Amino acid sequence: MIDTLIDIVGKNHVLTGSDTNRWRTEWLDTYPSDPIAVVRPATTAEVSAIVRFGNETKTPIVPVSGNTGLAGGVSGKGHIMVSMERMNTIHEIRKDSRIAIVDAGVILGDIHSAADAEGLVFPLTFGARGSAMIGGNMATNAGGSNVVRYGNTRDLVLGVEVVLPTGEVADLMSELRKDNSGYNLKHLVIGAEGTLGIITKAVLKLFPKPKAYATAMVAAPSIGDGLQLLNQLQDATGGSVEAFEYMPRAYVERHLEIDSTAREPFDAPHEVNIMVEIGTTIEAKAMPDASGQIPLTGELENILAGLFESGEVLDATVAQNEAQRRAMWERREAAAEVVLMHKPLINHDIAVPLEKVAAFCEAMEKRLPNLDPGAIPMIVSHLGDGNVHYSVWGKSQDPDVHDAITEAVEDETLKLGGSFSAEHGIGVSKLNSMKRRKDPVSIAAMKAIKAALDPNNILNPGKVLPD
Amino acid sequence: MIDTLIDIVGKNHVLTGSDTNRWRTEWLDTYPSDPIAVVRPATTAEVSAIVRFGNETKTPIVPVSGNTGLAGGVSGKGHIMVSMERMNTIHEIRKDSRIAIVDAGVILGDIHSAADAEGLVFPLTFGARGSAMIGGNMATNAGGSNVVRYGNTRDLVLGVEVVLPTGEVADLMSELRKDNSGYNLKHLVIGAEGTLGIITKAVLKLFPKPKAYATAMVAAPSIGDGLQLLNQLQDATGGSVEAFEYMPRAYVERHLEIDSTAREPFDAPHEVNIMVEIGTTIEAKAMPDASGQIPLTGELENILAGLFESGEVLDATVAQNEAQRRAMWERREAAAEVVLMHKPLINHDIAVPLEKVAAFCEAMEKRLPNLDPGAIPMIVSHLGDGNVHYSVWGKSQDPDVHDAITEAVEDETLKLGGSFSAEHGIGVSKLNSMKRRKDPVSIAAMKAIKAALDPNNILNPGKVLPD
Repeated sequence: MIDTLIDIVGKNHVLTGSDTNRWRTEWLDTYPSDPIAVVRPATTAEVSAIVRFGNETKTPIVPVSGNTGLAGGVSGKGHIMVSMERMNTIHEIRKDSRIAIVDAGVILGDIHSAADAEGLVFPLTFGARGSAMIGGNMATNAGGSNVVRYGNTRDLVLGVEVVLPTGEVADLMSELRKDNSGYNLKHLVIGAEGTLGIITKAVLKLFPKPKAYATAMVAAPSIGDGLQLLNQLQDATGGSVEAFEYMPRAYVERHLEIDSTAREPFDAPHEVNIMVEIGTTIEAKAMPDASGQIPLTGELENILAGLFESGEVLDATVAQNEAQRRAMWERREAAAEVVLMHKPLINHDIAVPLEKVAAFCEAMEKRLPNLDPGAIPMIVSHLGDGNVHYSVWGKSQDPDVHDAITEAVEDETLKLGGSFSAEHGIGVSKLNSMKRRKDPVSIAAMKAIKAALDPNNILNPGKVLPD
Repeated sequence: MIDTLIDIVGKNHVLTGSDTNRWRTEWLDTYPSDPIAVVRPATTAEVSAIVRFGNETKTPIVPVSGNTGLAGGVSGKGHIMVSMERMNTIHEIRKDSRIAIVDAGVILGDIHSAADAEGLVFPLTFGARGSAMIGGNMATNAGGSNVVRYGNTRDLVLGVEVVLPTGEVADLMSELRKDNSGYNLKHLVIGAEGTLGIITKAVLKLFPKPKAYATAMVAAPSIGDGLQLLNQLQDATGGSVEAFEYMPRAYVERHLEIDSTAREPFDAPHEVNIMVEIGTTIEAKAMPDASGQIPLTGELENILAGLFESGEVLDATVAQNEAQRRAMWERREAAAEVVLMHKPLINHDIAVPLEKVAAFCEAMEKRLPNLDPGAIPMIVSHLGDGNVHYSVWGKSQDPDVHDAITEAVEDETLKLGGSFSAEHGIGVSKLNSMKRRKDPVSIAAMKAIKAALDPNNILNPGKVLPD
């Protein structure tokens, strides 16, 4: 087997034994991987040959890019791991057409930089952008902090090239805004977590870079006011809200503990802290004035002052310079560090309709103490999307208690028309949730599709679909 | 069979013989349908029972909603036609959440009215909105004139309920902005033209109604200037371009012939006529002034005056009132009537990257006279999406000549990275194009999916996928 792999990618790019160590663990230290080998193809043809070999010999193939996932999507045993890291070319940024053509192994942050150099943005962003790769972002349909304005990863991808489980290459590298030529295979492979194909290349949408940002911390009377607040901000800015992120007091306090440079967001503490960012691409408002201030900041101050008058906002701090803006973002992007401060940690990544986030939080406030007295909820939320990272710092070490908490979270989520998996994906971590919570007709359809496209079940087996 | 169908939907809703006449033809008079019966279910359970019956007896099922399609998607023989017209309830418009929950048989124009009453818009729009139904819009992933801002139908749908080919009902009625729980079946059934399921219900995204529109006819030096012009308008308005529609002089002239109320768009005739509409949702600019004028109109006038100075625009007329705006839209929306003035008509619905529309048109200008001397191209284009309705008024009656023209259109489209099917879908009309032009690996994957979900091939057989 190793010889065949060497024939495909060359000796230097077939790693075994301790050379594979960096793929054997991941940063949560929860989902180990024990591959036969890690191979590092440089071309789509090499990926295709590897998958074809896996399919012929019925050897599981697990694609891996930045390995920053949260759901165990690249875990396993006895598989060939296909690292996309050498396929890291940004082929083209077409400024006027506002597209980027990139390999799957390009790091997200590198796409940001390349777009920025042309006065454009690729708006997908989250804490791990410095190591996450676009291939993994597509595989998991990553979300993040700008979804409220720009959508999830799938909304940002015009076309893909994908190696199917047979090793054949489907060319879906469209740059088009309209293309109705048969079933939408692009949307099928995006979010399939590498179980239906390995995406090797993509055409991404870019957007005009906002000429000015204005960013604020806002204290609201309650989470239940979130939807009205968001709507008011959207109406006042013509839909320019780029981020709308909720952090409860407990989160703010833990962040102050771990980051010595962090400051209180307001003079007095508040329970409901929302980070708001608006961005405008209108040229007339583009130029910073002589003081270096961003003019949009004044507009946001006016809007928030009005909301303060009407009692819809309790307090607000608008960033007056880039350093203050960065500090606001750092508080939000420290989520992983804050949440991981404690073990045991029972993680959930749920979404409910925005107007029901308050109901979800209230329901769990009642249920959690009965399930694990002393457990602490550690919440951070992309509130604009109704996406709540509801983590629990468990008191009990009992896995059955942890499961009971997860079941309760799922109960309350589904009662409110929500999803037990918002943006991190299923991997292996949420197979139980899929089994007990997802519409069984839909699961059966997914399994039929998987069996049709991957009859030997070689591509990332054991992920996404429960037995 | 008829008795069973009567058991399911009641005697009054199983139509046979001449009672089915209005489903036997369609407005192009090109794609006849010869059903055993037309049944009109009132509920999802009834649709499910009909499909289950079709699956058990191996009787083809063809869903039909407004019957305004352009690709023969509901044609056939010996099938049960399932009309969605009785499933026409708008269940809910949730103003704050900006969603609508509707049955598949609701007429698009009725969704427009219901959203409008709440100060919102459902932005999907095109000429046939008074009879097209949202079920058909989803089945075909309809496009239209506002895609440049809001995307295609699939981008406007949060969730669906769908009856699968086995008769089972998949509940994908999500209201969520983030939901990564397995393969995206919603995007698979949207655009599948009823071959993978019958969509019975949907959650639609609504948007704040623009507080003001400004609409103009713009004469550009060439189509090749389209992308720069669009980018400039987007930059100047913060991405508020709602429509960017190209009509060549020949189209304008034919429209003047058939509509006695129509006027010339400019004092002097121009070859490249572009209808531009911008819309703003910013409240500060919301109020019409005392004269009844829309303030945004002045902004558009200023922008266009600047482009006139720099020579990027040859002439421009900005609508000064709603009547003038409607007249601009009527010219564009008369496309079907204009194009259908002549027979034989060889229709194409292609898309290329926007910056390549000019190259496409130039290439066809050279090739068409060699294929059919005297043939006249009749073009109208959603230029903002690179979508060109390239129809040919044939001189020759020879079907082989017509095929040769279509082959030439496909050649030039694919050379430019385009699609032979942009927004109308495949139906039966473009099966040949699918066969000879679509990536064969992708077609094989689509067929595997179809066979997996519809093993008896009963749902809208013979559409989309070539033999």
